[in-house]
Amino acid sequence: MRIRYEQEKDIISNVLTSLGANDEEARVSAEVLAEGDVRGFTSHGISRLSNMIRKIKSGKIKTNVAIKITEKLPAVALVDGNHGLGHPVALEAMKISIQKAKSYGISSVGIYNTSHFGIAGYYVEQAMKENLIGIVSCTTDPMVHPFGGGQRLFGTNPIAIGIPHKKHPILLDMATSTASAGKIGEFRKMGKEIPAGWGVDKNGNPTTIPKAALAGALSPFGGYKGSGLSFIIAILAGPLVNAEYGSRVKGDYEIDKYATKGDFMITINPEAFVSRKDLEKHIEHFIDELKSSPNALGSDEILYPGEREYRTRRNQLETGITLPDWIWDDVEATAKEFGLEKNLLLT
Amino acid sequence: MRIRYEQEKDIISNVLTSLGANDEEARVSAEVLAEGDVRGFTSHGISRLSNMIRKIKSGKIKTNVAIKITEKLPAVALVDGNHGLGHPVALEAMKISIQKAKSYGISSVGIYNTSHFGIAGYYVEQAMKENLIGIVSCTTDPMVHPFGGGQRLFGTNPIAIGIPHKKHPILLDMATSTASAGKIGEFRKMGKEIPAGWGVDKNGNPTTIPKAALAGALSPFGGYKGSGLSFIIAILAGPLVNAEYGSRVKGDYEIDKYATKGDFMITINPEAFVSRKDLEKHIEHFIDELKSSPNALGSDEILYPGEREYRTRRNQLETGITLPDWIWDDVEATAKEFGLEKNLLLT
Repeated sequence: MRIRYEQEKDIISNVLTSLGANDEEARVSAEVLAEGDVRGFTSHGISRLSNMIRKIKSGKIKTNVAIKITEKLPAVALVDGNHGLGHPVALEAMKISIQKAKSYGISSVGIYNTSHFGIAGYYVEQAMKENLIGIVSCTTDPMVHPFGGGQRLFGTNPIAIGIPHKKHPILLDMATSTASAGKIGEFRKMGKEIPAGWGVDKNGNPTTIPKAALAGALSPFGGYKGSGLSFIIAILAGPLVNAEYGSRVKGDYEIDKYATKGDFMITINPEAFVSRKDLEKHIEHFIDELKSSPNALGSDEILYPGEREYRTRRNQLETGITLPDWIWDDVEATAKEFGLEKNLLLT
Repeated sequence: MRIRYEQEKDIISNVLTSLGANDEEARVSAEVLAEGDVRGFTSHGISRLSNMIRKIKSGKIKTNVAIKITEKLPAVALVDGNHGLGHPVALEAMKISIQKAKSYGISSVGIYNTSHFGIAGYYVEQAMKENLIGIVSCTTDPMVHPFGGGQRLFGTNPIAIGIPHKKHPILLDMATSTASAGKIGEFRKMGKEIPAGWGVDKNGNPTTIPKAALAGALSPFGGYKGSGLSFIIAILAGPLVNAEYGSRVKGDYEIDKYATKGDFMITINPEAFVSRKDLEKHIEHFIDELKSSPNALGSDEILYPGEREYRTRRNQLETGITLPDWIWDDVEATAKEFGLEKNLLLT
């Protein structure tokens, strides 16, 4: 199905408001999910709404929440999200990080007692809008085996890093698994095998059968290097910020449990190092050089991080967002189950 | 050949002192190089000494250098290394970062006008000794093609991240290329083909022939994700810190040119977030869980980042460091060329 960006935001916002979220919570969660879908990350868009509805109904995501901020040293804060919606909690935390980075040059904010926050890149972009560099990562439910291991122990532990630039905003936003569970699910629906290296079966053996990988574990990207990065994120967005580690991490899949995942952010003020004008100019020249570098065989174009997603975003803002039918069917079914279907009316 | 750790340090220190380095410069450079070799990173050990000798002789690495520090905001510093030896310059920068992280909770220091600094992990360890988390990266001579491209544009742009722990210090120290040029050189010497995905030839086509890859370009690790990470590091340790980008980056290979590479460090004080005791305990439990997770087929053990290198270090501190003969032959030849052979006497 196809849905307009503003329409998707309205629907999500209406659903959340009817469940008790205040205007700001509803607005922010709706915007983050729509931003996921509009740039093609359909695994991080409205597809998450069903679980959010269920967890709000079960009391394991709370609405109308005030976060609690602890500041032991001036450039750092630790945020207790009080089990609120992950999106507004993370946005508030990023606003703190932005203010601190402006004052001190760099800052870090950690978050615990919070739920899934959608695409990490959204929060990085808030820093980029203020001409700051953002780094945002989080832990998720265990789905990925460590390098050398055969069972789920790490989350997909994404990391997003953004560098502001007027013409070429750079935004790397990636999971530390080779492919997402959502992507493997698509191969399954198409009846296709997945490439080698994407996952292992229940016994820890490499598999190209989507169903087997989904029952087993996803593989980390880039061998021991990506696995190491995922492990580091598991600690930074885990025990460092008072959140859980390893198999104890709960994201948004278990309806009747509070999430125990964590978020970790760093914000850097480039003007603490060099002038904005020089940085803009040098990045532009670097990207010119990247673009004029010869392509590899079979490659049409060298892309910098974020370029593809921003193109998709521009296109889908015009044409509407294409969503797999199963996502909409699932949202509809859950809405009906809880008597929320009037909020889904497409206008 | 085999050399004792202390012996290697003495030799390097003596050579550098005889070339005009002051005691601290000689001591630090010697220690960093020996630390590379002792943990098995022979591409980052005494194998670098020949180039250092040549660049000091040509005036493109300066000795007896005072760094210049600019502080625009309290938690950040930018260091002009005045073309000194990369190791002592980076150590001084890390000391600044450590002090700032203790005061503010997080800090960042950038460095330009500096030369190759050896293993990034050495500086991270200085933070770890102070119970701080360290992140250190740098740019290097272009050797790696971007994802989708077929020619050298990125350095091997390493990143090291360390988390202090009494029993299990964690230290991820990796290049963002799949394999190092040194490793590919070893395959060449053994007359073996390299695995697919390590490099491309001069025309940008994937190759398994070591010589062709060394004449072409190394491949980034982990496809577009590793390539994206390398690009981000190229900016953070490049234009952000007043250093060069892309093909303009010079490391230590060109004898008659100043290096134009840059370094970028972040130091985090964990106690700004949680108690040291809690963090120690949770990391220990997480590693227990990692170690008791089932192995993949063909894997004997799941290692956490740094574990293998620290084992190698402990072993080689006892048995002596094994160096490929060509490395020692090269050091000897260069020392003779410049009349420095008396410094190489093994005692």
